[in-house]
Amino acid sequence: MPGEAPGGGYTRTVELANRLLSGDVRALARAIRMVEDSDPGVEELLRGTRGREAAEQVIGLTGPPGSGKSTICDGLIGRWRAAGRTVGVIAVDPSSPFTGGAILGDRVRMQRHSGDTGVYIRSMAARGHLGGLATAAREAVRLIGASGRDLCLLETVGVGQSELEIMQTADTTIVVTTPASGDGVQAIKAGILEIADVFVVNKADLPGAQRVVKELRELAHHTRAGTQWEPPVVLMTATEGAGLAELFAAVESHHAAMVANGELLRRRAMRLRAEVESIVMERASQRARQAMQDGPVRAQLDAGGIDPYVLADRILDGHG
Amino acid sequence: MPGEAPGGGYTRTVELANRLLSGDVRALARAIRMVEDSDPGVEELLRGTRGREAAEQVIGLTGPPGSGKSTICDGLIGRWRAAGRTVGVIAVDPSSPFTGGAILGDRVRMQRHSGDTGVYIRSMAARGHLGGLATAAREAVRLIGASGRDLCLLETVGVGQSELEIMQTADTTIVVTTPASGDGVQAIKAGILEIADVFVVNKADLPGAQRVVKELRELAHHTRAGTQWEPPVVLMTATEGAGLAELFAAVESHHAAMVANGELLRRRAMRLRAEVESIVMERASQRARQAMQDGPVRAQLDAGGIDPYVLADRILDGHG
Repeated sequence: MPGEAPGGGYTRTVELANRLLSGDVRALARAIRMVEDSDPGVEELLRGTRGREAAEQVIGLTGPPGSGKSTICDGLIGRWRAAGRTVGVIAVDPSSPFTGGAILGDRVRMQRHSGDTGVYIRSMAARGHLGGLATAAREAVRLIGASGRDLCLLETVGVGQSELEIMQTADTTIVVTTPASGDGVQAIKAGILEIADVFVVNKADLPGAQRVVKELRELAHHTRAGTQWEPPVVLMTATEGAGLAELFAAVESHHAAMVANGELLRRRAMRLRAEVESIVMERASQRARQAMQDGPVRAQLDAGGIDPYVLADRILDGHG
Repeated sequence: MPGEAPGGGYTRTVELANRLLSGDVRALARAIRMVEDSDPGVEELLRGTRGREAAEQVIGLTGPPGSGKSTICDGLIGRWRAAGRTVGVIAVDPSSPFTGGAILGDRVRMQRHSGDTGVYIRSMAARGHLGGLATAAREAVRLIGASGRDLCLLETVGVGQSELEIMQTADTTIVVTTPASGDGVQAIKAGILEIADVFVVNKADLPGAQRVVKELRELAHHTRAGTQWEPPVVLMTATEGAGLAELFAAVESHHAAMVANGELLRRRAMRLRAEVESIVMERASQRARQAMQDGPVRAQLDAGGIDPYVLADRILDGHG
């Protein structure tokens, strides 16, 4: 924080952590902005909220643009609120690294919850680099938990690898598709198929909806043969609320199954490993940038003829 | 390489490097497969080809699916071949991490060059993780250069951040759009705008083409005010070859300008820095995975309650 007295940044971070833990919405908004800006205070903040950072359930929702994700979000939020549970929504658009793009429109669509303090909705732009996007999503999810929300909904537009990485943060991943041309089973990438816990075929009124459901069921059956969970396929017309009860039931039963068979603990342990790996990578990247800015490494680069692999080893081992 | 006598892998890599340097197409194909598979031999291979790895020009081509990228590629290849220059094409689809997706179709479309040994076309699937995709593209471009191709064309489908990272490898980046709905100026993300050296508005026969050209020219003018290069906007009907001569001239004059004003050297120096950083990150990631697999780090993770930031520091400093 610029213009602060020495130590002031730390004190303010502790204060922010305390306000966050008390559920203060402005503190949450500010903390997430710090995540977006890759503010170094985020680390201190997350340490300050440690032990309180896990929401009971983290639900991921992904699918192509226009597949009705935000209407489905909206429906799920309504259900959770009716059950007295508080919700935080983080919407990430990896395809729009600089503006946040389409997600802003989605945010507007979820406005019917805007007067409800039990619902916090935030779209996140990906200002940092890619490793940073999954990292940022993960940190935001932790902040939502720290602020005392019972559930966190993590929404992302489907664009391949980055969406896969973001969805690693979820306990239950919902993959939405529609019978519209270009979507359907063809649009579901191999990696997505493997991380889906629940499929939604939205826009049931479009021709071919039943066929898409059938194909997805077969695909889910074959992909998960012999595993503990075969992802159910829910047919919906989200704009009319049709299928919402089934989706809600599918999400709840997936969560119950994961608690029962230990999968929830396993996933959270895997997530911690992914988290450590990504922190290691971010720090290594910082170390490389710093080393190349000046000193012997910069001189070697400017002189030319240096083997990048040799140089990388030197930097990593701090001999730069 | 499994089943080899100790040291055999090294000897074979040296042999492969020599065959690659002699322009052997099969050696090139095998080397690129090694890149895709993140084969540890790639490092040795690139060392073995060092000093020969730069193609004279690396041209990047990006744009939304269906914007006519491969037809434009095809046209450029024809021009270069007519001038007696050899070409290597690497097509990457970041949105399709597991199958290579749409690019396979594109490859078929460029088949008219399939009998020409002066043209090498390769689609690359992104089997590794994301950092790995830009890294893989960069390594493939180096291999194309090492195999003696005069030019390398790097094609990628526009999906945000990963495309930006891949395009960092190019000397000249061509950004394609069309007047079709969803494309046009709106589809050009801020990051793309900043890396474009030449714009193409393809499908000139569609309504609104002139308007898109006009808007792009204004945008390019404003974004690059005061810089040394204002990206020209070329109107094309690629399927009929219309505008191809203008595009070719624009690419050549961008290259000539970069040589004249030192920008080419500056870009290549930046690229080397990006390369070093990404090698550092990949090695850090390997180190983290290894550390978490067993030993004290694994024990700490299993015991729980460990701060991921503290653990990350220990791993990075080799105290795992």
